[in-house]
Amino acid sequence: MENGNEKNNVEGIVESEETKEHVRKEDEELSVERIFDSKEVPSWRKQLTIRAFAVSLLLSVLFCFIVMKLNLTTGILPSLNVSAGLLGFFFIKTWTKVIEKSGILRQPFTRQENTVIQTCVVASSGIAFSGGFGSYLFGMSERVARQSEHSRDVFDYKNPSLGWMIGFLFVVSFLGLFSVVPLRKIMIIDFKLTYPSGTATAHLINSFHTPEGVKLAKKQIRALGKFFSFSFLWGFFQWFFTAGDDCGFASFPTFGLEAYKHMFFFDFSATYVGVGMLCPHIVNVSVLLGGIISWGIMWPLIETRRGDWYPADISESSLQGLQGYKVFIGIAMILGDGLYNFSKVISRTIAGLSVKFHERRINKQIPVAERSSSFKTLSYDDERRTQLFLKDQIPTWFAIGGYIGIAAISTATLPHIFHQLKWYYIIVIYIFAPALAFCNAFGCGLTDWSLASTYGKLAIFTIGAWAGSSQGGILAGLAACGVMMNIVSTASDLMQDFKTGYLTLASPRSMFVSQVIGTAMGCVISPCVFWIFYKAFPDLGLPTSAYPAPFATVYYNMAKLGVEGFSALPKDCLQLCYAFFAAAILINVIRDGLGKKRSWFVPLPMAMAIPFYLGSYFAIDMCLGSLILYVWQKMNKAKADAFAPAVASGLICGDGMWTLPSSVLALAGVEPPICMKFVSRGTNSRIDEFLGS
Amino acid sequence: MENGNEKNNVEGIVESEETKEHVRKEDEELSVERIFDSKEVPSWRKQLTIRAFAVSLLLSVLFCFIVMKLNLTTGILPSLNVSAGLLGFFFIKTWTKVIEKSGILRQPFTRQENTVIQTCVVASSGIAFSGGFGSYLFGMSERVARQSEHSRDVFDYKNPSLGWMIGFLFVVSFLGLFSVVPLRKIMIIDFKLTYPSGTATAHLINSFHTPEGVKLAKKQIRALGKFFSFSFLWGFFQWFFTAGDDCGFASFPTFGLEAYKHMFFFDFSATYVGVGMLCPHIVNVSVLLGGIISWGIMWPLIETRRGDWYPADISESSLQGLQGYKVFIGIAMILGDGLYNFSKVISRTIAGLSVKFHERRINKQIPVAERSSSFKTLSYDDERRTQLFLKDQIPTWFAIGGYIGIAAISTATLPHIFHQLKWYYIIVIYIFAPALAFCNAFGCGLTDWSLASTYGKLAIFTIGAWAGSSQGGILAGLAACGVMMNIVSTASDLMQDFKTGYLTLASPRSMFVSQVIGTAMGCVISPCVFWIFYKAFPDLGLPTSAYPAPFATVYYNMAKLGVEGFSALPKDCLQLCYAFFAAAILINVIRDGLGKKRSWFVPLPMAMAIPFYLGSYFAIDMCLGSLILYVWQKMNKAKADAFAPAVASGLICGDGMWTLPSSVLALAGVEPPICMKFVSRGTNSRIDEFLGS
Repeated sequence: MENGNEKNNVEGIVESEETKEHVRKEDEELSVERIFDSKEVPSWRKQLTIRAFAVSLLLSVLFCFIVMKLNLTTGILPSLNVSAGLLGFFFIKTWTKVIEKSGILRQPFTRQENTVIQTCVVASSGIAFSGGFGSYLFGMSERVARQSEHSRDVFDYKNPSLGWMIGFLFVVSFLGLFSVVPLRKIMIIDFKLTYPSGTATAHLINSFHTPEGVKLAKKQIRALGKFFSFSFLWGFFQWFFTAGDDCGFASFPTFGLEAYKHMFFFDFSATYVGVGMLCPHIVNVSVLLGGIISWGIMWPLIETRRGDWYPADISESSLQGLQGYKVFIGIAMILGDGLYNFSKVISRTIAGLSVKFHERRINKQIPVAERSSSFKTLSYDDERRTQLFLKDQIPTWFAIGGYIGIAAISTATLPHIFHQLKWYYIIVIYIFAPALAFCNAFGCGLTDWSLASTYGKLAIFTIGAWAGSSQGGILAGLAACGVMMNIVSTASDLMQDFKTGYLTLASPRSMFVSQVIGTAMGCVISPCVFWIFYKAFPDLGLPTSAYPAPFATVYYNMAKLGVEGFSALPKDCLQLCYAFFAAAILINVIRDGLGKKRSWFVPLPMAMAIPFYLGSYFAIDMCLGSLILYVWQKMNKAKADAFAPAVASGLICGDGMWTLPSSVLALAGVEPPICMKFVSRGTNSRIDEFLGS
Repeated sequence: MENGNEKNNVEGIVESEETKEHVRKEDEELSVERIFDSKEVPSWRKQLTIRAFAVSLLLSVLFCFIVMKLNLTTGILPSLNVSAGLLGFFFIKTWTKVIEKSGILRQPFTRQENTVIQTCVVASSGIAFSGGFGSYLFGMSERVARQSEHSRDVFDYKNPSLGWMIGFLFVVSFLGLFSVVPLRKIMIIDFKLTYPSGTATAHLINSFHTPEGVKLAKKQIRALGKFFSFSFLWGFFQWFFTAGDDCGFASFPTFGLEAYKHMFFFDFSATYVGVGMLCPHIVNVSVLLGGIISWGIMWPLIETRRGDWYPADISESSLQGLQGYKVFIGIAMILGDGLYNFSKVISRTIAGLSVKFHERRINKQIPVAERSSSFKTLSYDDERRTQLFLKDQIPTWFAIGGYIGIAAISTATLPHIFHQLKWYYIIVIYIFAPALAFCNAFGCGLTDWSLASTYGKLAIFTIGAWAGSSQGGILAGLAACGVMMNIVSTASDLMQDFKTGYLTLASPRSMFVSQVIGTAMGCVISPCVFWIFYKAFPDLGLPTSAYPAPFATVYYNMAKLGVEGFSALPKDCLQLCYAFFAAAILINVIRDGLGKKRSWFVPLPMAMAIPFYLGSYFAIDMCLGSLILYVWQKMNKAKADAFAPAVASGLICGDGMWTLPSSVLALAGVEPPICMKFVSRGTNSRIDEFLGS
């Protein structure tokens, strides 16, 4: 899942900056845990309250809608950790206040409980992403498959259905948790990995529970609430004007009809303005740059070759025509970027591992007394955190037993869901998976970059090639991708949460239970939310839809490419693909070569590739978000930094929330009453004549 | 001119509140003139600089466009004094700064010069209003006359033409100035009339020239500039989407298509949002209330009587049908309100006059020594101001000679322009005019309420009835209205300016010269600007146009009513008119009966009548302006009070400025490229089918 990469990429940069600040702060304040000394840490069972899971359920549904919407529109996912943290805090605070007034409050709201909610929500909405509803899972459907050229009349597809989706998620989503649980002490305490997102979340939660933090959080929540309502109402208002295709604000030709045809317009989406505010400026600029290069220059040029490079009479959506260039050049860039980052993270993982093992060996050899002199002594914070982290153990036999048990069930069940996926493919995946899960969790700890989607692509190509075209290799590859992605993605998520738990003194046991419950929630909620979208918007997945699900097409064609080779590509497309594959790697090399400071102007190839298929309308939203943030920071840096994430979250959540009633309305057959139409002057006079007569 | 009433009404309330504040301030600071003591007052010739008139010319053109736009859309004119003051200050300040740097600045920028600009701009843009381009003058045109039912096939009309309009304005506009000049000492020094608008403007100008005032003014100008640009660009952006009727943001069915049919929608006009911010809340609410009563309740009810009360097959725009109810009920309310206020102001004028003359007689009988003990001694400010006000005299023979001379030219010329207006009508008008001009100037000094349009109506009915239907009474009445209105309106304007001059130590002579030059400018600029509108928008004056010029229709029909009686009215319309006429008086009685404080919830009948004909779309803009101001005041009262007028002026001026290039584009035949169309779902699918086939 490319969005996977993008998600963690974005998270990585955003959060790691926050982290730096927090780390600096911590240095100044010396010890966080001393502030919290007066507060008792509840036992792990008491950290898992009913109210926490009730709030988690509520937020899970909200975030599922948001993530699903993002998945199905562009596949760009910003970090929603801040919103999850803020909203979780808000709900529980309100809850405890109400209960307090009624006088039956038994347990105060602790930061451990806050962490439990955070973990549960992230786990649950993680499934909405790793479940592949915008990529491999929906890529299997007939609707996506039909868009490609097929040599045979019969081709493999598997249409979504609530039953098998829930079943599939249940048998594959828990494996990741069990595969890395035994390694938590090594990763967190021995290796002291950073996990920037997890650390930042922990600092956020810690800050909420200090007296000044409570005040700031309240203000942030008010800002979030204001923009949430605005964004929700704006979505509601827009709805009235969308009777019919190309109607409404989403089709507003802000820069003229000619630019609109080339997908340059501002579509008034509060979501992507918010996304733009959360993403670093370079991501937004890269997306816009990619849009300009592709839709502004390349596609119009290629279109002049119509009849030469590709048949003139071919349908607009056929991959044998212009659409093929859009999809495959995009895939080439994504794969180039993926390959580069894979090699980079793997090499850093190996290098990091060797260093850590070396340190550990030294530590063990030197007696304790000397260690404390030759190495920095443990700070009070570290001491207290380590003590509580090691208090509640999860037995290794439980983890290994769980993994083998679920793997066995999974191996028995999966071939019944996808008959193309043979049991021996699954066993091979499950043998390698723990190693890959560890690699991903470790790499993520170092760089904050989860390579889940890259591992998924690995599975597509290897299992797809193994199965071969005649054996339904496309579906086998996509299904294998799903199995692999779920394992490695949940593994790195869990380790992030352990880091958060470590820093907020939440017990690893409660983290694990919360993650299990969150995952279970996600396995049910995500397919249901997807199902609502699928039923409510019958054109879901088509290139002209409001929900084009771009990565479903990309994943299907990657699988097809892996199985059938390059034969299906239009003329000169392969050469262009090579060029862009190389360009993606080259740009990355330049980025890393220049170093972080001097490479601020080098675009991100991954971000550039997304508009190749979609057009740059959302890039304009995102750049507007960037611009707003930029101006705000110029005017009042402190205020912008404190409130921009809350404002952006409000915009994203409000618009995402509106998709809930909007899909309910669509399901109930309530159609909007008005069409806001944009026509040229000539067409308008023809229409007026037609309506007059 | 109803808009006249409304204008001064609005001004009255807005400015008088400002005045109060300024008066309070003055008490605190004790003496304004002591602050300015170090600054020399230039001689009256030096107050009249070339740069001042260059800036005045520039601003006159800008304000002419704005006033014309307001005239031709709704006829509601807010006070533009603040914007004129701010912009005049800004231009001269920039000018002097540039000159200062080049080292050839001979004369610093004084408040007297600022007053000269202010006076000139107000005089010039006053002509855009009292010239009747949105009322009596355009009401004479064939286009407006055709909308009424006519018993004869031949009916009188006089289409606008640049030549006669300029000539007409030149022969009637200067009379007012000469008629009241000799009375300035009585009004300003002896009677010490308030002239709230003039006083407020003077305080504004004084404040600009104190050191703290300069700082605040700079900030206000920055706010004005920001919203000016925004509003201009917004107008520009909107333009692109207006290819064809009912296209663009001005036809946005914000509350649905059904509400749009009944004229309830937000038309995204920055101008009227700004107007709403300048008008008191009660004006905005009254307008909305009037819209709800008329378009929400009455017209739909009357429409159910179609075929019974009026013929079913009649055209939409015929005054024999529903349109007749809209126009005549509105006229009835306007006349009721006018009659009430006329009696009120006249009675207060008489009462005030008798008191003042009584005081004066006492003053004269008591020796000076005693006077200073029994009456409050003259403050330093008053002493200095009086001294300078009396320094430069304008000889009475000059005023009387001027009046008689111009009246003679006028009497000789006017019958050639309007052959229905006999020379003896004109002489009668000119005999009564000085008295009425004095009454209006005095009433305005007491209440800030110029009754120019009421005197104009008086002329319509008396001269119209005198001339009679067969002698072209309609045109005679409208022309007489123009003559009368110009005299009384300029008379009260001049006296306001004398008050401003008195308070800023500007010489009465420079005030008078500035007023004469401004009037001359207005006599040329206004007809030219109107001509641009007239040529650029060929549907100007039609009810469906973006520029319906509502009061042109109202004035034509008042004249017709005066000449032909009630015979042309549809069934039961006269009864409804009586009811609304009475209601207007009753509401006014209640307002005044309750007193200013307790009558805050009683609507203004005049404001209620405007949407009767137009619908309430602009009422929604204005209420939005009110709402913004209200929220702003709740958040930060001091800031809102300091900057709201600047923001509102920016919104109005920017949008008004855009009408300049927009009419140039229209004249050049450049049409907007896109139509933003709003159609129902059913119509949309028909259109899609039609376009598809």
